[in-house]
Amino acid sequence: MLILSKSNPQVKELRALREKKARKEAGSFLVEGEKMVKECLLSGIRVKRIVAREDYRGELAPDLVLGSDAFSSISEEKTPQPVLAEAELPHTSLCPPKGSCLVLDGLQDPANVGAIIRTANAAGYKELYLIGCADPFSPKSVRASMSGVFFTELMQGTREEVLSVLENIPFIAADMDGENIFSFTPPEKFALCIGSEGNGLSEPVRARAAHTVRIPMGEKTESLNAAVSAGILMYELKRNLFI
Amino acid sequence: MLILSKSNPQVKELRALREKKARKEAGSFLVEGEKMVKECLLSGIRVKRIVAREDYRGELAPDLVLGSDAFSSISEEKTPQPVLAEAELPHTSLCPPKGSCLVLDGLQDPANVGAIIRTANAAGYKELYLIGCADPFSPKSVRASMSGVFFTELMQGTREEVLSVLENIPFIAADMDGENIFSFTPPEKFALCIGSEGNGLSEPVRARAAHTVRIPMGEKTESLNAAVSAGILMYELKRNLFI
Repeated sequence: MLILSKSNPQVKELRALREKKARKEAGSFLVEGEKMVKECLLSGIRVKRIVAREDYRGELAPDLVLGSDAFSSISEEKTPQPVLAEAELPHTSLCPPKGSCLVLDGLQDPANVGAIIRTANAAGYKELYLIGCADPFSPKSVRASMSGVFFTELMQGTREEVLSVLENIPFIAADMDGENIFSFTPPEKFALCIGSEGNGLSEPVRARAAHTVRIPMGEKTESLNAAVSAGILMYELKRNLFI
Repeated sequence: MLILSKSNPQVKELRALREKKARKEAGSFLVEGEKMVKECLLSGIRVKRIVAREDYRGELAPDLVLGSDAFSSISEEKTPQPVLAEAELPHTSLCPPKGSCLVLDGLQDPANVGAIIRTANAAGYKELYLIGCADPFSPKSVRASMSGVFFTELMQGTREEVLSVLENIPFIAADMDGENIFSFTPPEKFALCIGSEGNGLSEPVRARAAHTVRIPMGEKTESLNAAVSAGILMYELKRNLFI
């Protein structure tokens, strides 16, 4: 059956998943585009339903087919791809990391959070701890993560909880006053800590740092984009593994 | 004199600068926020006028004061900062680079273009050649560049023109099939080429490459965000200078 109305209850439910509160209540998040939906299916995350626009002719079998207006009302994108899925929010409880991990402290831009998750997945940081960040399961972050949210463990907690679960892991804090990252030798297992776009790391996280590192920059520059600097640091700290 | 109306001719002129065509005609672009306007003044780029919202109490002396609605109508930001400037578009003609430089080939996302300019400035790439990219002087790109647009030379040209002016410079192309960047030794002077978000480098640029490099990644990842990978490559290729 083809649903045309934006006010159809199922369409409303899906549209509500743009908001964190509704995601939490439904235990679901949105995955947009054929490629991402396929990766989601492969990742083992449960897909609750696949929703297609009436003109979709791809490989996925939709559970629900919507008219163009109804479909567009779900996505925040100007030109949405014609298929999306409602996927089950992974249930991840806070636990200590197996390998080196990432701590994101107060990052507010969902596109930065997503891009960092994407890089973390590429660089082999499979465990991320998020303190007071933009929700990694927002549509913007999911999109920017390019499937990274399916293949990393995203653990959210209060600052206290995260510091407690990482008690025995040396923290490497990214900060302008730190050591030059390019001449720094990291411990074998560590937690790289990235602060917010405007304010950097919070005091409690900074205070726990065993090491502080910076990316050297030209005179006229004070900082880099948070996702760019996180990417440079993530790769540099594992450089030996990549040579 | 306080201007309240959004349809005031001066307000309209300023608002039009969101669009590339109007920027070209006026020879101007918008710089938003006190910090950026100050950097613009320091950079030597001519500021044509400083425009403040009526509640602005900062250090800059405005040439024009606007009511809240009129001011907000200029910016694309949801919560604009209360001061902005109209600055003169730098007149940069295509010429060969003095140092190692960057070639951006078909990048469409203004936030990526801006973030790459920001990193280029930090990492000491002062000359950028843009082929068919999003305009670096759009408000989004200027903002993402965090003053980078004031302190780098941004040269725009056709593919043919850029290839011709860089005739004697070895190209290092970023591509998934390239050599591992972490074990690659670059020539002393080079042009690092970054392709578009979806399609990578164009064939003519790829064909000119003396070297092709990739960032190694885990199995489940095919690519990184363009600004993140540009950042990793820019720093890695100049790593020796930073140690």
